[in-house]
Amino acid sequence: MIGPLAVSMGDPAGIGPEVIAKAWDARDSHDLPPFVAVGDVRAVARVWGGPVARVDTMAAAAAAFATALPVLSVEDAGEIVPGAPDTDGARCALHSLELAVGLAREGAASALVTGPVSKAQLYGVGFIHPGQTEFVAERCGVARDNAVMMLAGPTLRVVPITTHVPLAAVPGSLTIELIVAKARATARGLQRNFGIEAPRLAFAGLNPHAGEGGALGREEIEVIEPAIALLREEGIDATGPFAADTLFHPRARATYDVVLCPYHDQALVPLKTLHFDEGVNMTLGLPIVRTAPDHGTAFGIAGRGVAEPGATIAAIRMAGEAARARAA
Amino acid sequence: MIGPLAVSMGDPAGIGPEVIAKAWDARDSHDLPPFVAVGDVRAVARVWGGPVARVDTMAAAAAAFATALPVLSVEDAGEIVPGAPDTDGARCALHSLELAVGLAREGAASALVTGPVSKAQLYGVGFIHPGQTEFVAERCGVARDNAVMMLAGPTLRVVPITTHVPLAAVPGSLTIELIVAKARATARGLQRNFGIEAPRLAFAGLNPHAGEGGALGREEIEVIEPAIALLREEGIDATGPFAADTLFHPRARATYDVVLCPYHDQALVPLKTLHFDEGVNMTLGLPIVRTAPDHGTAFGIAGRGVAEPGATIAAIRMAGEAARARAA
Repeated sequence: MIGPLAVSMGDPAGIGPEVIAKAWDARDSHDLPPFVAVGDVRAVARVWGGPVARVDTMAAAAAAFATALPVLSVEDAGEIVPGAPDTDGARCALHSLELAVGLAREGAASALVTGPVSKAQLYGVGFIHPGQTEFVAERCGVARDNAVMMLAGPTLRVVPITTHVPLAAVPGSLTIELIVAKARATARGLQRNFGIEAPRLAFAGLNPHAGEGGALGREEIEVIEPAIALLREEGIDATGPFAADTLFHPRARATYDVVLCPYHDQALVPLKTLHFDEGVNMTLGLPIVRTAPDHGTAFGIAGRGVAEPGATIAAIRMAGEAARARAA
Repeated sequence: MIGPLAVSMGDPAGIGPEVIAKAWDARDSHDLPPFVAVGDVRAVARVWGGPVARVDTMAAAAAAFATALPVLSVEDAGEIVPGAPDTDGARCALHSLELAVGLAREGAASALVTGPVSKAQLYGVGFIHPGQTEFVAERCGVARDNAVMMLAGPTLRVVPITTHVPLAAVPGSLTIELIVAKARATARGLQRNFGIEAPRLAFAGLNPHAGEGGALGREEIEVIEPAIALLREEGIDATGPFAADTLFHPRARATYDVVLCPYHDQALVPLKTLHFDEGVNMTLGLPIVRTAPDHGTAFGIAGRGVAEPGATIAAIRMAGEAARARAA
């Protein structure tokens, strides 16, 4: 039995509070581990009529979880209006994130799950990171290249080697060092978080047909293949590069534990084609377990009661399983 | 009732002859239109024990189809050894293709389906086109940018706007003119071949998150959006650009008839993730109907009897439906 997870609510005007409450509703049907929501308790009350227990400690959260959604309240959001984000809300989201990260780092929480924030709003209150992943990595003392964003659904795990850069900048961003760093953290993360002893890493090529022997681009030959050779020398089961369009059908998915893709869409397109409503973002390479639902604040539907909790349920479930794997 | 389709066998040493014969076996269960195989009759006999009818005319092919696989024989392959391609075989594949294209252009065949060829082998016998699509387009007098490669499966159609170019060359290849030419041919092709009166064209962005308002690349703003605006002025139902990773889950697929993608993998990855064994390559923008199974010669498994005919069955079926739509 693991202790409660810390789940930051994200922006109080987004769908975070609602999907966390709905996840608590689904705790038994989805066999979820105990968790505590971290954020302004009023944000939950505004969008959900279920039982809430304000708690001050993780022990109190664990005790309350069976009968009420435990909330560790961070009450510096101002007036909360679902769908209308503001500066007070952004500050609250940031404080909730900081508190939840701290609980996980200290070991008070067995894992961290982060709710959706608005980067545009966060930048207005002094946030200087590209996203929550980089913030969490910094708080954990991990260099950016060693923190890996993995997206996971029930039948597929993918890692984009480069993330939020223009497509034209991808070929120049792809270095042997970057690929090796991301792959090492991926392999180690699959061992620690999923208990996979010898993870099988498949690499997608950058170019169509993985470059077709150099005829359609040379990055496979000059960058990806040398990186794979280095990884194999270290004993990591790395294969490829394969033509990306041959990697994601059911028979192919049975041959690896994760695909590392040179760029964002190559990884995210197959993942979201297959698992749009249940995609989980897990950060590998950290001393703590961290997951997040793979969607945004969805301000446009916040407060209407129609937000889908599937990805949050999956994120809490996967974080709990990883915490158990690490404790084993 | 349409007349027989012409199906070129492709390389006689590849899996083409086998999958065409297997498609004939499945003619009733898959409700296939009548077709004639065009290629060396010995290539079929080598890998299949079913009934073959050598024919000289399309009328004879139509008459024979119910009880035997009609073959219009092009006997200039030398010794045929499945899995061992040679120059004679490449010459045979080219002659079969030429004959089948000619039959379709003259109207003797109601549509053209092309079996898989080896480009490397074809180059050895004087073939100068990037692929069969460009060869067929030239024979039909259609400029290259106006011939569109569309990949289609049961629940998705995609068009890559650029095709076999290195990823680094994609941003520079993407012009307003190219997008508009491809989109016009796509819209017209969906009207003619599928009977869709007002086809809905969705565009994927080039960059992650479709550029996020310019923060992750400006091609959406400078190239794709202006192209979409031009198309809408012409009355074409063009929308986007959308973030590619949000475009291919089931709910999204219900909102369009085809997605136009800036580059190869963005289009092919979702198509083959969903429909690996039944993908059809259809050329739009031609005066004739032309389809092909979306796979290669598979020399490695040729002659073993294990080749999957699903994509060839789908290609023949789709070509027959398109021929009927045009005749209606």
